[in-house]
Amino acid sequence: MKFNQITPEAVEAFAAIVGREHVLLPTATDDMLRYTHDETEDLRYVPEVVLKPANAAEISRIMQYCHENIIPVTPRGAGTGLSGGALAIHKGVVLSTERLNKIIEIDERNLQATVEPGVITQVFQEAVIARGLFYPPDPSSRGSCFLGGNLSESSGGPRAVKYGVTKDYVLNVEVVLPSGEITWTGANVLKNATGYNLTQLMIGSEGTLGIITRIVFKLIPFPTQNLVMLVPFRKEEEACEAVSKIFVAGIVPSALEFMEREAIEWADRYLGNNIERPADELAHLLIELDGNDMDLLFKDAERVYEVLEAFDVGEILVADNEKQKAELWLLRRNVPHAVKGNSIYKEEDTVVPRAELPMLLRGVKEIGAKYNFKSVCYGHAGDGNLHVNIVKADMSDEDWNNKLPDGIKEIFELCVRLGGTISGEHGIGLVQRPYIHIALNEVQLRLMRGIKELFDPRGILNPGKIF
Amino acid sequence: MKFNQITPEAVEAFAAIVGREHVLLPTATDDMLRYTHDETEDLRYVPEVVLKPANAAEISRIMQYCHENIIPVTPRGAGTGLSGGALAIHKGVVLSTERLNKIIEIDERNLQATVEPGVITQVFQEAVIARGLFYPPDPSSRGSCFLGGNLSESSGGPRAVKYGVTKDYVLNVEVVLPSGEITWTGANVLKNATGYNLTQLMIGSEGTLGIITRIVFKLIPFPTQNLVMLVPFRKEEEACEAVSKIFVAGIVPSALEFMEREAIEWADRYLGNNIERPADELAHLLIELDGNDMDLLFKDAERVYEVLEAFDVGEILVADNEKQKAELWLLRRNVPHAVKGNSIYKEEDTVVPRAELPMLLRGVKEIGAKYNFKSVCYGHAGDGNLHVNIVKADMSDEDWNNKLPDGIKEIFELCVRLGGTISGEHGIGLVQRPYIHIALNEVQLRLMRGIKELFDPRGILNPGKIF
Repeated sequence: MKFNQITPEAVEAFAAIVGREHVLLPTATDDMLRYTHDETEDLRYVPEVVLKPANAAEISRIMQYCHENIIPVTPRGAGTGLSGGALAIHKGVVLSTERLNKIIEIDERNLQATVEPGVITQVFQEAVIARGLFYPPDPSSRGSCFLGGNLSESSGGPRAVKYGVTKDYVLNVEVVLPSGEITWTGANVLKNATGYNLTQLMIGSEGTLGIITRIVFKLIPFPTQNLVMLVPFRKEEEACEAVSKIFVAGIVPSALEFMEREAIEWADRYLGNNIERPADELAHLLIELDGNDMDLLFKDAERVYEVLEAFDVGEILVADNEKQKAELWLLRRNVPHAVKGNSIYKEEDTVVPRAELPMLLRGVKEIGAKYNFKSVCYGHAGDGNLHVNIVKADMSDEDWNNKLPDGIKEIFELCVRLGGTISGEHGIGLVQRPYIHIALNEVQLRLMRGIKELFDPRGILNPGKIF
Repeated sequence: MKFNQITPEAVEAFAAIVGREHVLLPTATDDMLRYTHDETEDLRYVPEVVLKPANAAEISRIMQYCHENIIPVTPRGAGTGLSGGALAIHKGVVLSTERLNKIIEIDERNLQATVEPGVITQVFQEAVIARGLFYPPDPSSRGSCFLGGNLSESSGGPRAVKYGVTKDYVLNVEVVLPSGEITWTGANVLKNATGYNLTQLMIGSEGTLGIITRIVFKLIPFPTQNLVMLVPFRKEEEACEAVSKIFVAGIVPSALEFMEREAIEWADRYLGNNIERPADELAHLLIELDGNDMDLLFKDAERVYEVLEAFDVGEILVADNEKQKAELWLLRRNVPHAVKGNSIYKEEDTVVPRAELPMLLRGVKEIGAKYNFKSVCYGHAGDGNLHVNIVKADMSDEDWNNKLPDGIKEIFELCVRLGGTISGEHGIGLVQRPYIHIALNEVQLRLMRGIKELFDPRGILNPGKIF
């Protein structure tokens, strides 16, 4: 790909579109700094310019200009991504959606909401909860990530196991295409059999097909009751086995999270928790049940206990007040931060059919032993989605850079052999790109590349990602 | 489009692929007859040949041959479609999937099932219920329609309101592309952020992008309890208003169906029911609640009653045994057959955000008055999906053929104005094609046509549909 550099004239043109105060140049080091990285490892790429447009019309004009002048554009939400999707690896423009941050409407009659992409996920969740409504997708970064970014990666989070991922709540999106054209992808309806599903094509496309400027979500009534329990297991693989057994027993928890011993230990330490966990507890499941009737939840909990009787479990902690529940969730949500704070690491977003989880975990440890790396695993076990955190610790730079990729390749090959794939909710972006051939065959790649070319014939939108 | 006719040599080539007994020629009138129509109005198109391959490999060879020789191929499930998607309007091959009718696996560990596209929806539902599992999508034709056809149209049915439509249960599909290449579209996982969503692109593509040869579904635990009630309303629009009020009250029924007076009356007559319904009852809602706890369902029913108190309703019938429930569902499921038996008709599959349903119903009646047509309306009100059945009755052929299309156009324009679209679950196919510009703009159409060309560069697969 041959892109043009950004000239002083281009900067002037951008300033005329978005206003000078919404143009950042690399000379403005401090302000610029946060646009050079996301949450992916320690990667840094400095763009030629950062633009902060206010609306779809401005984005359209930027895209027209860049389309005409063959300038790469990397769309960016809050920069919380874990696959490097928001990194301007070909320089050019970083287009931040941070000023498109309005909740336009919460339509209580239709249980729908229309928002801009720069709204923080948790802000949106709280706004709809205030009306008794529920927007379930809740990635770990929900306190800072943007809804637009959630769409781009089809983010999940703990509650996906019962309620589905981001894609399951999107009815319609407005996008600006690389050409600058603005269009909605569908209609504001729960069912749509009118042409191809452009909406779902945009979701998970990692900012490579268009820039999302408005989103229509469906909402559901907020479940008023829940129950949270933390179950220690003496064998890691048994924790994984219990996961599918709970579903087979007819229970659909609203969260079913797995944490290895070290994941919970590191999070304890990170949070300054003064807890001594028995040495033989090698893994935990965090189980949440929700609904509108406490008696029914207790009945479901009884059935969970019955399932757990078949396994070697420690003392089950049932959170019986809001404070305890919040503490358990705080623990779980801080595992990624704790891992990050502990060492340089790479996070692999593996996903398999849920009953294959014990096989995946065993395989990851075997591959680790072979390649001499340590891994800390946790994640959305109910979805078969295991985050494998490979920590550098005392691995040599040589091994980290040159030998580890072969180990990661083996992990991904195992996922695919088990019926799974290489990313459940983080996307391919930049860092999984070398492994895409493990998950996708030549026919699939040809079709995807063809779609990319159809939407973006000059290849200016988020180049170098996915393929 | 310029297609080649099928020569005797082509017939020989097909016979060599599928076996002579699985090739039907128009001379075999009786056997051939049912492949000349689907359930759309009284449309009939005679193909040059009907082929009944046994598997993906045979379909691949057929497609290779047709691709090379530019012969049109119309894929066909059970022929229960309502938009003419299975009609061979350009002649050529009708490719029936009826012999791909195996349930390959019901994976109870993972709550997944792998099936061939020619399995009848109800057969599949019953097979999974026998294992305590649930496949919710249940189009009215579920006793005869094929799962492959359900995917092609993204079919819904009454339970979509709580459980979602077909697309929400498909994890992965194997397809044969027009070139003859065979590929899966995704992986057998609940979350997938690995490349563009080819799976959802296939669903609802009405057999224009590829031929589905295997489907991996996700399943959920079967809810053991339910409660069904029939609520008569004295004002039609109030029945529609009550629909969104029930959701706003925090209740998500497992079905929420609307039937106009005449819909239920015609169904009564069709079934030979000897019921005298009070003359002032102008519409009915059929409401189903489901779950695993009867006490909780009764509580939910109480809350439904509270919502209904604001409306002018007649005596509510609560079905308190399985026989009564079955009778109510039989009534609802036979409305389409009753309408069909009554007169020549056209069915419009309108869909709007659910709270706009009263506006839609009023608009349909006003447009009917203007164009002098009678309509019988019923459908999945909880989804905002209203089936508008325009009956010919004593309308002149002249008006039916020449004036009515303008009336239908006005109905669809109203749908779009209300935030909806022109098909919720039947597809565009042949009969809605003239109206597609009402729902889709030039940008959307260009992208969709581009996708079509990418998948099917010679335009041989189900030509003349959608666009």
